[in-house]
Amino acid sequence: MPDSHSPRRLVLLTEGSLDPYNAKTAVGVLRYRPEHVACVLDSLRAGEDLEKLVGTGRGIPIVGTLEEALATHPTGLLLGTVAPGGRIPQSWRTLIIAFLERGLDVISGLHQFLTEDPTLMAIAARTGATIQDLRRPPADLGVATNIAKDQPGLRVLTVGTDCNLGKKVTSLEMARAARAAGWDAAFVATGQTGIAIDGKGIAIDAVISDFVAGAAERLVVESANHEVLFIEGQGAITHPGFSGVTLGLLHGSAPQAMVLCHHATRRYMRACPTPTPVPSPAQVLPLYERLANVLFPSKVVAVSINTLELPEDEARAVIARTESELGLPATDPVRFGVEKLLNALEPLRREHT
Amino acid sequence: MPDSHSPRRLVLLTEGSLDPYNAKTAVGVLRYRPEHVACVLDSLRAGEDLEKLVGTGRGIPIVGTLEEALATHPTGLLLGTVAPGGRIPQSWRTLIIAFLERGLDVISGLHQFLTEDPTLMAIAARTGATIQDLRRPPADLGVATNIAKDQPGLRVLTVGTDCNLGKKVTSLEMARAARAAGWDAAFVATGQTGIAIDGKGIAIDAVISDFVAGAAERLVVESANHEVLFIEGQGAITHPGFSGVTLGLLHGSAPQAMVLCHHATRRYMRACPTPTPVPSPAQVLPLYERLANVLFPSKVVAVSINTLELPEDEARAVIARTESELGLPATDPVRFGVEKLLNALEPLRREHT
Repeated sequence: MPDSHSPRRLVLLTEGSLDPYNAKTAVGVLRYRPEHVACVLDSLRAGEDLEKLVGTGRGIPIVGTLEEALATHPTGLLLGTVAPGGRIPQSWRTLIIAFLERGLDVISGLHQFLTEDPTLMAIAARTGATIQDLRRPPADLGVATNIAKDQPGLRVLTVGTDCNLGKKVTSLEMARAARAAGWDAAFVATGQTGIAIDGKGIAIDAVISDFVAGAAERLVVESANHEVLFIEGQGAITHPGFSGVTLGLLHGSAPQAMVLCHHATRRYMRACPTPTPVPSPAQVLPLYERLANVLFPSKVVAVSINTLELPEDEARAVIARTESELGLPATDPVRFGVEKLLNALEPLRREHT
Repeated sequence: MPDSHSPRRLVLLTEGSLDPYNAKTAVGVLRYRPEHVACVLDSLRAGEDLEKLVGTGRGIPIVGTLEEALATHPTGLLLGTVAPGGRIPQSWRTLIIAFLERGLDVISGLHQFLTEDPTLMAIAARTGATIQDLRRPPADLGVATNIAKDQPGLRVLTVGTDCNLGKKVTSLEMARAARAAGWDAAFVATGQTGIAIDGKGIAIDAVISDFVAGAAERLVVESANHEVLFIEGQGAITHPGFSGVTLGLLHGSAPQAMVLCHHATRRYMRACPTPTPVPSPAQVLPLYERLANVLFPSKVVAVSINTLELPEDEARAVIARTESELGLPATDPVRFGVEKLLNALEPLRREHT
């Protein structure tokens, strides 16, 4: 049984999905909480270079077996990939049980709650292991009451042309840089990966749809002691599967400022088995603003572009073209930093704090 | 214990909320399934004229006590009012238990599931009563896959400028008139009242938000054997509490045609404790169309106006003004029928069937 005061050392299970998009929970923890990671467990990628595969995690080993994972002296297992629908593959169950039997914790970001599985809970109770469902919402949520817009401070929400393209990373990078610049800034986690990184939040996509804006509203109200909130965006207003989550988050969190996130080279929306073209930033920008503006003033102040698949000169060209087309500052936060984004927010920060 | 082959005779509990909007589940059943109603139980309105209070239910008594309700020989109790958040008042529990103890069924449209209450379930098991949670979703829902748009037939969704203003009634009236006109038409219930009336459906506001469009998609696919589907709308794209439900339903059901519902005299949105003005039809109409059109062709073909609080000449004036402003046919379906709406749909029906 791990000492609860020792630092967390997690095995990140990515089994067969070790890329920056499918393994987004693992990659998020690798990027922002590398000190919590013992190893990545992925039998298809064992021995490969993690940083080459996912762009972060330098020096952290990828192992292929349970025995090798246990040899890294972990305190627990994190299920680090999320499939649409979030169902736990039967093949993972054996591994989960192996950890629990050894008194090691298990953390899951899936929709199917481990804490509702009597077999797993009985093992955990016997061995002293803990099971955490990152997506499990508070029991006392309700319908939003449209009060987020009246809270003090500046609220900045990342929105997108698609899901799974960098909204969370953009919010985290802005929060980190803002704090470094002396702003009283907080990151507000609205999804399982954000919660795994930040230790708190609500996975609003696991809240019943009547309460999705209410959950977002609560997160904003509870963090209103900070001057600037960087709220993790979800989905996209035009995504066939997730648009309801996105709009509930927009209306519930009532941001004065939005940063529009786009993927430079993606043609079809992710997490949608029928080919569905990604709309352009110019097409969705006015939709976000008009939907917000029925209830509160809000505008898109900058654009964040994921250029991961482009060489640097092409990435710079895409960014320059976007700036010219939309008349807004643009950047790739991971590649070129977020200074432009914070500069775009500075006048609103002065106005609202 | 009631004979399961005898017709359903329900006591509709509206305790203190007997008006057309707060008691929407009771009023929906009164309007469309009066043969299932034994009486209304409301101690504040006992003995009053039901039709005068809610515009329907002629001849059905309002009683004030449990004893009077039981004297109407009911087969069950329907919790007929829904508060935002859907929590069961403690004071109703005694009444629910009184019905269950007598072997009488209990039907609830609230978010708080009676079937998860061990005490109530134990009583029901002992007496043979059944408990039905209208909002309980199927266990196997998933993320929408954008396939509703490819189903055969015409899909007609009611959308609105606010929640709780007549979308369900408009859909039901269109379905009834369409069948009378010989169309192969079906009503698709997406909320607890629609399910209470139609006997099937999914309450999409009780589905976790990641699956809200998936639930709508499933309903459409399962009904695709009909030529025309009249899909019950939910909420409004601009409602601070419910907009996520509305957008998930729009994208998941992929209607080719929308009927925009508006309330002639309402100034502030319902189910929102902070005063929030209702937008105009002209303001929200292009938002609905543009949000839909990113994924599939769709247009608002007509307007449904709730004129309940207006004298007839003023109602006709509002309708004429709306038709002139928007260039679309308009009607109050309850007051003036739905002929104009079906006429507006007829060209699309011919195109898609």
